[in-house]
Amino acid sequence: MNTIGHIFRLTTFGESHGAAIGGVIDGCPSQLKLDFGFINAELDRRKTAQLSTASQRKEPDQIEWLSGLLDGVTLGTPIAFIVRNEDCKPADYDALKEVYRPSHADFTYERKYGLRDWRGGGRASARTTLPIVVAGAIAKQILKGQGIQVVAEVTAMGDAEQARKESDTVGGIVECRIVGIPAGWGEPMFNKFSAELAHAMFSLPAVKGFEVGDGFALANMKGSEANDAFINMKDAGLRDAGRGTGDIKITTLTNHSGGIQGGITNGNDVVFRVAFKPIPSIAQPQQTVNRAGEPCTIAIEGRHDVCALPRAVVLVEALAAMVTVDMWMMAK
Amino acid sequence: MNTIGHIFRLTTFGESHGAAIGGVIDGCPSQLKLDFGFINAELDRRKTAQLSTASQRKEPDQIEWLSGLLDGVTLGTPIAFIVRNEDCKPADYDALKEVYRPSHADFTYERKYGLRDWRGGGRASARTTLPIVVAGAIAKQILKGQGIQVVAEVTAMGDAEQARKESDTVGGIVECRIVGIPAGWGEPMFNKFSAELAHAMFSLPAVKGFEVGDGFALANMKGSEANDAFINMKDAGLRDAGRGTGDIKITTLTNHSGGIQGGITNGNDVVFRVAFKPIPSIAQPQQTVNRAGEPCTIAIEGRHDVCALPRAVVLVEALAAMVTVDMWMMAK
Amino acid sequence: MNTIGHIFRLTTFGESHGAAIGGVIDGCPSQLKLDFGFINAELDRRKTAQLSTASQRKEPDQIEWLSGLLDGVTLGTPIAFIVRNEDCKPADYDALKEVYRPSHADFTYERKYGLRDWRGGGRASARTTLPIVVAGAIAKQILKGQGIQVVAEVTAMGDAEQARKESDTVGGIVECRIVGIPAGWGEPMFNKFSAELAHAMFSLPAVKGFEVGDGFALANMKGSEANDAFINMKDAGLRDAGRGTGDIKITTLTNHSGGIQGGITNGNDVVFRVAFKPIPSIAQPQQTVNRAGEPCTIAIEGRHDVCALPRAVVLVEALAAMVTVDMWMMAK
Amino acid sequence: MNTIGHIFRLTTFGESHGAAIGGVIDGCPSQLKLDFGFINAELDRRKTAQLSTASQRKEPDQIEWLSGLLDGVTLGTPIAFIVRNEDCKPADYDALKEVYRPSHADFTYERKYGLRDWRGGGRASARTTLPIVVAGAIAKQILKGQGIQVVAEVTAMGDAEQARKESDTVGGIVECRIVGIPAGWGEPMFNKFSAELAHAMFSLPAVKGFEVGDGFALANMKGSEANDAFINMKDAGLRDAGRGTGDIKITTLTNHSGGIQGGITNGNDVVFRVAFKPIPSIAQPQQTVNRAGEPCTIAIEGRHDVCALPRAVVLVEALAAMVTVDMWMMAK
Repeated sequence: MNTIGHIFRLTTFGESHGAAIGGVIDGCPSQLKLDFGFINAELDRRKTAQLSTASQRKEPDQIEWLSGLLDGVTLGTPIAFIVRNEDCKPADYDALKEVYRPSHADFTYERKYGLRDWRGGGRASARTTLPIVVAGAIAKQILKGQGIQVVAEVTAMGDAEQARKESDTVGGIVECRIVGIPAGWGEPMFNKFSAELAHAMFSLPAVKGFEVGDGFALANMKGSEANDAFINMKDAGLRDAGRGTGDIKITTLTNHSGGIQGGITNGNDVVFRVAFKPIPSIAQPQQTVNRAGEPCTIAIEGRHDVCALPRAVVLVEALAAMVTVDMWMMAK
Repeated sequence: MNTIGHIFRLTTFGESHGAAIGGVIDGCPSQLKLDFGFINAELDRRKTAQLSTASQRKEPDQIEWLSGLLDGVTLGTPIAFIVRNEDCKPADYDALKEVYRPSHADFTYERKYGLRDWRGGGRASARTTLPIVVAGAIAKQILKGQGIQVVAEVTAMGDAEQARKESDTVGGIVECRIVGIPAGWGEPMFNKFSAELAHAMFSLPAVKGFEVGDGFALANMKGSEANDAFINMKDAGLRDAGRGTGDIKITTLTNHSGGIQGGITNGNDVVFRVAFKPIPSIAQPQQTVNRAGEPCTIAIEGRHDVCALPRAVVLVEALAAMVTVDMWMMAK
Repeated sequence: MNTIGHIFRLTTFGESHGAAIGGVIDGCPSQLKLDFGFINAELDRRKTAQLSTASQRKEPDQIEWLSGLLDGVTLGTPIAFIVRNEDCKPADYDALKEVYRPSHADFTYERKYGLRDWRGGGRASARTTLPIVVAGAIAKQILKGQGIQVVAEVTAMGDAEQARKESDTVGGIVECRIVGIPAGWGEPMFNKFSAELAHAMFSLPAVKGFEVGDGFALANMKGSEANDAFINMKDAGLRDAGRGTGDIKITTLTNHSGGIQGGITNGNDVVFRVAFKPIPSIAQPQQTVNRAGEPCTIAIEGRHDVCALPRAVVLVEALAAMVTVDMWMMAK
Repeated sequence: MNTIGHIFRLTTFGESHGAAIGGVIDGCPSQLKLDFGFINAELDRRKTAQLSTASQRKEPDQIEWLSGLLDGVTLGTPIAFIVRNEDCKPADYDALKEVYRPSHADFTYERKYGLRDWRGGGRASARTTLPIVVAGAIAKQILKGQGIQVVAEVTAMGDAEQARKESDTVGGIVECRIVGIPAGWGEPMFNKFSAELAHAMFSLPAVKGFEVGDGFALANMKGSEANDAFINMKDAGLRDAGRGTGDIKITTLTNHSGGIQGGITNGNDVVFRVAFKPIPSIAQPQQTVNRAGEPCTIAIEGRHDVCALPRAVVLVEALAAMVTVDMWMMAK
């Protein structure tokens, strides 16, 4: 269950302090000349998108491409890639071997699997999202050929510098837009475009909320306020941004629905927001228990971000791009 | 793509004004004596959970069981069932044939499929959720044998009686708790318990938001506020509600995480909320376009609910129960 | 696990003596005007393809279409259909309730599920293949639009009339050709065209062997005998039967490979054979055990075919057509 | 579509002359201490199982384990591994760049993908089966814990030494037995144990036939000859080889069915045979066409086996073990 996607599929593997993390992309079209500069730039966004207060872990994150390419062109066969974990200091984590960090996955992994890789979060580490950036960058390249762009930004975030002084962390919200997407994508019953996006976003660590269009605010609105009137784009003086099909170009005057109606895109921008909880690793002492069930106190020292939000932007975009490519392939 | 679930799977079919709607449940354990009284009671909850202001459509919703049972006991083979659509008056919908109702799926279905069943919403009708109630009732029966309960309620809703006077509709929020669920269920990477729930809930018509635990509120909290301290249940004087494994019973003091950490249940109640937009069918005149792209006005007369929330409670429970059974089977 | 196909998918349900058997086809393109006459003719082929010596069970096998259609045109939504089991005489089967028929599925079902529907084979009855004929007929209609034909015939069969006199049964071989199929269909690693066909054919009751092209005979050949030389169709004076792509039309001089190389079609006819064991229901007394493990003798009286082969032809064609449609959709 | 298995899943990647080949195993139970010695021994079987006449390609085939393990114990997370391709001499293959080798996948890959990795077969090379041996070795280790053994042997093969003198190649047949497998495994409709085995075996290059039990010979038998009488093992003086459940131990006197009835194991040995065509790479001159469709002659020089059969034994076992583990997990 480490695979996402129906046709454009990514399988990921790796623990934060194992030999390597990586991924296998299956279902990528053949004859696509990969833009490695762009892929690396996306990886850099993930790294440099850190606050000055962020993790000091220095890793080159050099991708080794293992398969699926001939002279940089996709063969249609699985594209496998790895990034080595070079900066392993498991000794840093010795203190965590016997203790469950609050709101981390230590306890739940151990209950599920009977054991866990206690070195830096193991499979639950944020580092394991790196392959998503790679697959997302390829998906974006595919979408670019269709005139579709995926753009996210942080729209809410706690006061990071203050939190750092208090040895604390903050959460926030990322908003994402898929621009130029045609009407008619998404599977109406159990694979609605919104359901696929929700599923994908909850794959990211620390995600606790997801909404499309006006989302939770719609619960307080009346139908007459929430409905999006259809208009003819020509009448409205709008130029076509991929919204129409054939000669009749229709869009909606407002976009409370976030571009999705009945689970299918309506040609307006797909808009959604993702809520991230604060990073649970804080240097303040916290109450917890050890593996024997005995109460104890933990203060998580070491290299940790104050906020995951800046890093999260490229991840949200990546998953949105992957879902969009997948839904496009399904629509065909 | 009309199937939900990995091992415990429901495939649904049917349009609101076709011959019948129904479902096929695959992966249900054999030798389960179905409680038909309970299944019918759940269907009644869906029907009678309507406000006095609600739809007058009168249908017996009598289930015909077609397969998978011998003397009311499951055979392990697919359980198929249908409910006939007896109250069809397609003529009521003639006016809708050529016009796209705002914030309905008329336009998007037509763009996706090139045609649509314009009679009462077709496949996008809320009526197509009926098979979910049936499968959910069976899932609840399975969970009951594991000591697990799924209970939802409406926690926010607009003023329905006022909206009715104004020929308008309202939305709201349903909150659901899965009580007695053990730690260790959920697949950590792309099939987190939270991701599976999010995916399932967005299968319901009109859902626009989903959050787990404190959800969007966590985006405004600090780590020190959001973290859930682990405690030994014995120390805390708590009795076991299925939370522990073996002799060491551990739970969390608070439940900001909504019972899920790293995508896996931690033994505390799973808590989540689902935001529903107002029903888009309103009797007020609305601006829209017809199939030729010409502007026009529509006022949707006929039998329509003012609010979907009362009906939605049993649907949210049903899908949560189905996801929980599925995750249980995966955990095995 | 009652679903076959990746994109063009059939889910079947039903026991031979339950209320009904049926299927749900998901992934069928929209806007296809179904040829009901052809579908019924295919069902008749299955029925009348019986030897004069065959089963006397008289059932109208009238299809009830439940969903997915508007005025006989596919909506793109799931197409559900059922056929009622009207001729149930479970009493005929009382003798079989406690005894395991040799080479039937009685024993294995009971070991798997802990119980079984003992009335006439239940889910293991050949009657449960009826939905395959329906889905296959629709698949054939789709392929017809692509210029592809699927044709099977019985190429080997025991002496049925002699077997009947001896209260015995016979097996045989069905050979099938997919004519007009383009090169380039099939997924090369684990979903080779040959693998998908093999998987599908072993879904049929009584199938015990499958081979592509020269099949088992290739095990005795040398490379120089088995290889299929490529030729230019123009040079060979062949007209294009869908084999070429673009201007260069290439095919093979011989077809030992059965039209599949590396798991992908090469444009020559796909040719395969399916071996059916004799029907295990024989009127001769046979040694067996009952549910208590006690030795006993059974003579299976009643309405049974002497040979499944005539019926099997349309089933082999149907599954081949379904696989071909599915592989076509994957290739897109 | 480079994944096999439902719960115990292997995804493979890699071309013969790319950077590496490898696999990702998902669904392997946690807390299994891997027997690396056994895994390497299985890889050696694949290599040394070559005839003296076999390929001279010398590669260490050293496995790099990338993830899913802590101190050699499985974590329950994906197990990724690679084997580097160290012995690449693409220049050897320059002659093949523009020509389609008869009965190879050159032509079909190019028609499917629009391009191909012409260096030594690329994705279609037999080398890409190496990850199957690794996953199979782990599957065998799991089965060993259940008392189940998978053993294959070559039962028919052409005269290899003679073929070598004639610059030719030979095919053959591998027979495999799964011993100690309990009754009740396999999914009866579209995922019969036999269908899963057939599907898996056709994943191997050069496979053109598959049969279970007496297979094609059953087509010539009568029911009275083909049926397997049930017996009580105690009466028959047989000791339990995992065939019974509970107190009543039942098996079949003969095993024409190959241990599978109605798609489900009956507790007797599962027996099947796989037919391999001769390796298509022969040094004799052969007629073919080039990419421009022009007739030409090709003689495939270089390091090639005369017969794939000796290598195929461990591959057949590996896939059979993987299918058996998968069916076991499904049965749970």
